[in-house]
Amino acid sequence: MTITQPDLSVFTTLESEVRSYCRAWPTIFDRAQGSYLYDEDGHTYLDFFAGAGSLNYGHNNPVLKRALLDYLERDGITHGLDMSTTAKRAFLESFQNVILRPRDLDYKVMFPGPTGTNAVESALKLARKVKGRESIISFTNAFHGMSLGSLAVTGNAFKRAGAGIPLVHGTPMPFDDYLDGRTPDFIWFERLLEDTGSGLNKPAATIVETVQGEGGINVARPEWLRGLADLCRRHDMLLIVDDIQMGCGRTGPFFSFEEAGIVPDIVTVSKSISGYGLPMALTLFKPELDIWGPGEHNGTFRGNNPAFVTAAAALETYWNDGQMEKQTLGRGEQVESALRAIAAEHSGASYRGRGMVWGLTFEDTARATAVCRRAFELGLLLETSGPQSEVVKLLPALTTTPEELDEGLRVLARAVRETD
Amino acid sequence: MTITQPDLSVFTTLESEVRSYCRAWPTIFDRAQGSYLYDEDGHTYLDFFAGAGSLNYGHNNPVLKRALLDYLERDGITHGLDMSTTAKRAFLESFQNVILRPRDLDYKVMFPGPTGTNAVESALKLARKVKGRESIISFTNAFHGMSLGSLAVTGNAFKRAGAGIPLVHGTPMPFDDYLDGRTPDFIWFERLLEDTGSGLNKPAATIVETVQGEGGINVARPEWLRGLADLCRRHDMLLIVDDIQMGCGRTGPFFSFEEAGIVPDIVTVSKSISGYGLPMALTLFKPELDIWGPGEHNGTFRGNNPAFVTAAAALETYWNDGQMEKQTLGRGEQVESALRAIAAEHSGASYRGRGMVWGLTFEDTARATAVCRRAFELGLLLETSGPQSEVVKLLPALTTTPEELDEGLRVLARAVRETD
Amino acid sequence: MTITQPDLSVFTTLESEVRSYCRAWPTIFDRAQGSYLYDEDGHTYLDFFAGAGSLNYGHNNPVLKRALLDYLERDGITHGLDMSTTAKRAFLESFQNVILRPRDLDYKVMFPGPTGTNAVESALKLARKVKGRESIISFTNAFHGMSLGSLAVTGNAFKRAGAGIPLVHGTPMPFDDYLDGRTPDFIWFERLLEDTGSGLNKPAATIVETVQGEGGINVARPEWLRGLADLCRRHDMLLIVDDIQMGCGRTGPFFSFEEAGIVPDIVTVSKSISGYGLPMALTLFKPELDIWGPGEHNGTFRGNNPAFVTAAAALETYWNDGQMEKQTLGRGEQVESALRAIAAEHSGASYRGRGMVWGLTFEDTARATAVCRRAFELGLLLETSGPQSEVVKLLPALTTTPEELDEGLRVLARAVRETD
Amino acid sequence: MTITQPDLSVFTTLESEVRSYCRAWPTIFDRAQGSYLYDEDGHTYLDFFAGAGSLNYGHNNPVLKRALLDYLERDGITHGLDMSTTAKRAFLESFQNVILRPRDLDYKVMFPGPTGTNAVESALKLARKVKGRESIISFTNAFHGMSLGSLAVTGNAFKRAGAGIPLVHGTPMPFDDYLDGRTPDFIWFERLLEDTGSGLNKPAATIVETVQGEGGINVARPEWLRGLADLCRRHDMLLIVDDIQMGCGRTGPFFSFEEAGIVPDIVTVSKSISGYGLPMALTLFKPELDIWGPGEHNGTFRGNNPAFVTAAAALETYWNDGQMEKQTLGRGEQVESALRAIAAEHSGASYRGRGMVWGLTFEDTARATAVCRRAFELGLLLETSGPQSEVVKLLPALTTTPEELDEGLRVLARAVRETD
Repeated sequence: MTITQPDLSVFTTLESEVRSYCRAWPTIFDRAQGSYLYDEDGHTYLDFFAGAGSLNYGHNNPVLKRALLDYLERDGITHGLDMSTTAKRAFLESFQNVILRPRDLDYKVMFPGPTGTNAVESALKLARKVKGRESIISFTNAFHGMSLGSLAVTGNAFKRAGAGIPLVHGTPMPFDDYLDGRTPDFIWFERLLEDTGSGLNKPAATIVETVQGEGGINVARPEWLRGLADLCRRHDMLLIVDDIQMGCGRTGPFFSFEEAGIVPDIVTVSKSISGYGLPMALTLFKPELDIWGPGEHNGTFRGNNPAFVTAAAALETYWNDGQMEKQTLGRGEQVESALRAIAAEHSGASYRGRGMVWGLTFEDTARATAVCRRAFELGLLLETSGPQSEVVKLLPALTTTPEELDEGLRVLARAVRETD
Repeated sequence: MTITQPDLSVFTTLESEVRSYCRAWPTIFDRAQGSYLYDEDGHTYLDFFAGAGSLNYGHNNPVLKRALLDYLERDGITHGLDMSTTAKRAFLESFQNVILRPRDLDYKVMFPGPTGTNAVESALKLARKVKGRESIISFTNAFHGMSLGSLAVTGNAFKRAGAGIPLVHGTPMPFDDYLDGRTPDFIWFERLLEDTGSGLNKPAATIVETVQGEGGINVARPEWLRGLADLCRRHDMLLIVDDIQMGCGRTGPFFSFEEAGIVPDIVTVSKSISGYGLPMALTLFKPELDIWGPGEHNGTFRGNNPAFVTAAAALETYWNDGQMEKQTLGRGEQVESALRAIAAEHSGASYRGRGMVWGLTFEDTARATAVCRRAFELGLLLETSGPQSEVVKLLPALTTTPEELDEGLRVLARAVRETD
Repeated sequence: MTITQPDLSVFTTLESEVRSYCRAWPTIFDRAQGSYLYDEDGHTYLDFFAGAGSLNYGHNNPVLKRALLDYLERDGITHGLDMSTTAKRAFLESFQNVILRPRDLDYKVMFPGPTGTNAVESALKLARKVKGRESIISFTNAFHGMSLGSLAVTGNAFKRAGAGIPLVHGTPMPFDDYLDGRTPDFIWFERLLEDTGSGLNKPAATIVETVQGEGGINVARPEWLRGLADLCRRHDMLLIVDDIQMGCGRTGPFFSFEEAGIVPDIVTVSKSISGYGLPMALTLFKPELDIWGPGEHNGTFRGNNPAFVTAAAALETYWNDGQMEKQTLGRGEQVESALRAIAAEHSGASYRGRGMVWGLTFEDTARATAVCRRAFELGLLLETSGPQSEVVKLLPALTTTPEELDEGLRVLARAVRETD
Repeated sequence: MTITQPDLSVFTTLESEVRSYCRAWPTIFDRAQGSYLYDEDGHTYLDFFAGAGSLNYGHNNPVLKRALLDYLERDGITHGLDMSTTAKRAFLESFQNVILRPRDLDYKVMFPGPTGTNAVESALKLARKVKGRESIISFTNAFHGMSLGSLAVTGNAFKRAGAGIPLVHGTPMPFDDYLDGRTPDFIWFERLLEDTGSGLNKPAATIVETVQGEGGINVARPEWLRGLADLCRRHDMLLIVDDIQMGCGRTGPFFSFEEAGIVPDIVTVSKSISGYGLPMALTLFKPELDIWGPGEHNGTFRGNNPAFVTAAAALETYWNDGQMEKQTLGRGEQVESALRAIAAEHSGASYRGRGMVWGLTFEDTARATAVCRRAFELGLLLETSGPQSEVVKLLPALTTTPEELDEGLRVLARAVRETD
């Protein structure tokens, strides 16, 4: 599609080699609206990546935009540390009324800093403080963040190696179906906990994603999550659900763990919580765990008030009834049906997912990268995931229309065909 | 001043006990402009805290606001991961042209995630990877952040204890004048490095703040910084300057290390870099250190494009000539002169600082807290710092007018008098 | 049996509470010969514990005693650091000629200090240095020693807690049959190694006991050991066999791994290597692994020359032909047959073992302790093992005669009956 | 002296490259008596090394030899785990009556395993358990052993690197006079402890040698030791004196800390405690620290009964009165006087020491190795110490006669002259 090569020189000469997505999408984006991005040469891209799940309501959602502009125009507090502000109060009240209360969730809310890894770091600190133990259980192919605490419970060997120090105090356990159903759930995990001779340092907590996005769209069954919650309870470990990517409606309900009927001790929320792609994160926990001292964890940007404004607007706009959840499940069926057709057409292809998060994988592990590259040429933004980048990951905005979905799925089908 | 007690119940019941600043300032802020905040009951507060140094150009600076509104209105990319965007390009070009090139600084730019601790984590990772060593030297009373990597090189025992695991791989050395001039600079540090029997794990890097803000406004002399840079060079350690709070003009020049004439290997920048209080951070390093693999460190909000927009506007507005630096040094003299008068009037009081960062301290360590409390009642926002909160910290916006400065300094003098 | 209570006051008042075996055997031993100990009140005890496997040739074996007395009388070097001595040369030559060469084992010999944990520490250091990785795989219910390096790969939670620091860099895997045959061997271990997203730090080595003595007499099948050796080879990990308790003929052949036909990269040897109960240990490794620098690991008592003398005498006396192995297997059958009878007589009892190491276990986990207590009263020394002390452990000297074995096994049977 | 080259092939081909002392002394030793060793070619060597301080009463001391032979001949218990035995009782009673009681020392006695590093590991574990903290303070150029716990508090970079993992939880402080008197004692250490912002993890304990043997014969002044004891008391840290090499009379009194008049909380003892060069070690601690659980730390050879026999004999023979201490101080003066003469004769030479431990050092750091090599050729065994092997270390047996001392000191003087 691209005719003239964009001039990327300032990026390639001045920006660090660490940059990544921009390598797969060699153009310069300028504007975005809803499900589409536009580059400066006027090309249009349908976005099935949605800021890695940070843009569940689409780019520059007009309702949220209006609230944001109004707030900025009237000189509402922008940077608020952890001061009490009217914007923060409005967010807290909405979160209480729209999200927590209807779900009977009695959580304290912490603003740990505006990124997901801030939330994970605070969750791990709190769990360790509450239980007085260092060890945390994570799962194979987990992704929880890039600061040292979060990285220690993240699976990817390349990212772990970046730490430059041995990552310790974390032990991986098999995620659901990791061993292809050849072993009973939790047989190894529970035996380690029961046996005082097992050599496992008794864990403070277990941290889990209900669907592993970066790990390859691995979907935990509700019964597996219930089994895990039960195991944690019986062995005095806290259960932390990292809902940074799968929360805020990505799988259908606001929290991804609702379907399983479990109530985690600690929940991390970020990415789409601001609704507008602005940095914001929450750590939620049961009130009896709130043993923090004032300022024991903090962060300069934990009071990003413009994000509170769009976050409150998003909650009030989309979550006051069950409509959004229903719509997401419906659109998910549309995606699933298209993937089913692709898989039927291509031997070695398979798919998995839930709500509006789906993965398409091939026996040939290099195929996913090729599919995404071709899709980009065809004007569709898609990324891979999984330890070998072997999965095409679909994360369209929840507000993507059936027509847009259909358009993107057709491009995907074509990209698959054209990479045979 | 406050007549009716504000209703803080949603904060006290729903928000975690970890909140801190809001406890000292028990009101609900609503709007802000320049050097002033306004609470919802219509009270006005002169701000000598400036978002802990994140608002060097004042609250909702009108020039930056205009740029931000324009960008949002035209649906510029909001959330950009590390995609190439026109907003990012504009920022990079401004940073190159306005900051790096005139200072002959040849740095690669990394967007490590939008908070200071993201920048520090990435700096430590890179140093460890480059040198193949785990150990980092930090300084007494350093503050570098709250995620585990940054916390391990932070001095405060209360915050360190929050980690819930033993913090290792870091060794503190005495900051400038820590031992009251009773020992030669670096005598201990250098001996440890020279002696293969010393027991010090050979460090990958040293991380330092030129002025320790959280640590109590401890100002390193330029010759001490030069000695440190020389020590690092001679002993094959990287020098990391954490300029998160002291950079962006806080001490006068754009980078706080310019006065000493040193060129750190790695620099962390955050807080005021966006200019508008929006989350944004940079890690700068010499090109030969750029051995990152693509995506080896990342973060969802590392492409906070609205922040790039205000950042570029701030650079173009304030740093195209030497005016800002000159102004800051002049205003600093105004502050110093007022503090000198206060110290002369109160036995046991002393002060220290540089540019627009100053500390006022008392022999009675509880006094600073009392002064800040009284100042709040008088409509002035001030915070304490130091290991025992024994220092009144002055961080007015760089754009504070002489008249505003004068007003605040008079309130401060009164608060000191009234807490005798 | 004991009529008068022995006066243990000097032990109970002066010695630390850490003492353990002496609590179960409340008498004062004075002399010992062959399979018997004698207390100072003239009582006789048949020893089925043999110094926890350090006295494979019985107490004060007369052949070794003669060699030792001769050496001491002629003022042979006693304490030799790592000097070359005639006694060390004689041992090395015997070890080469009697043990290594006939088994086609090409190992370098290291004297790491005279205790088992010295050998394990040196083995782990060497593996980490060779592979440049920190992580070590150990097995559930492993016991490798009490210094920090060894303790980190030991399973017992009580002993681990004694470290006072979090024990890291080790990960436990399921020992043979740990999950009751409900999962394929190594399914979890291998998947973790294959999957770069698993979160397992790539290990330098795996350390294993072929029979776990302290862990409860858990016997690894030869095919499991072969599978493990194969896994290590395929995944570039060193295989360390800790043969401290099971080597020196305890299971039949000199090395316990011979039956499986594997050749470990590193072997630790201690306990019965001196033959006389004197402190001595060896670390054996393939020549290509010998990348130690001179003195990189050392220890004051690594040249315990009297132990070299008895060790050489033991090798020459017992291992010049296959007689000892044959005899051990025969005596083992005698033990097994007696245990079979006991198990048949008592529901809930079961047994396991190999060569001259056996375990008798009961569904009632408290029973083993009761049986050992009763056995002591009847003049038989037995200890428990296993994470809950639920296993009666039989470790008679290999030189125990059929008649002595028969005597002890009858006492054991009686003790079992009398604790019903 | 050596005419024919000894055949060292079995050592060079079969033993690991880790061997060290044997490289400097390329001969094969066979017998030893008192202050002399004899190689198998009939050469005689005067020993000024004494098993690195393990042979304070000379080689194969006839009194201890008699006791040992009697014990072995009568089949006394050889290997006793931690069983109560008559030999152990006799040792405990002697230790109580001859050592502890006359010095008013109320210590519990632990047998932690028979090597120095076992004792250090147990001391560190206990300190951490008692205080509930991980961090230990050690000193520059300390040597405490080679297992991981001990190595982490040892200074030598080469030996530390052998660990293969980053050694953490230890922080070095300057030993007495480390900074050449240019700083007040403990100025840095105490400031770190007082300042809650210093970044030092609060230590459980400080471990110190009163004279650093391996570290270069660095002698702590009594007032420095008293200052340290006082600092520990005031800051709630345990004081551990590692008296493994300097105890048992090496510096004059039985414990090297007696001269300073301090009472450590924990003391480690090994090397010369058995008196005969047999492996044995003790950990002593104040009764209120004895919170060990039974078996929480153990070791197979912790009941090396032959060593208890020679240990008791040594105490009864040499320590029943003050004669030994007096004699050591006298012989020390003889050594000092000879070293003074050498230093006077050679510019750049200096000496230091206490009792019967002395160091001779040269400005040319390579000189010490040359001196020791020449001394060996002249029939005198000497070793170097210090981080660069820059110190000739003199550790003659305490029983060395004035004539033998004189002989050795003359050889030393000649070796120094001949290496000019």
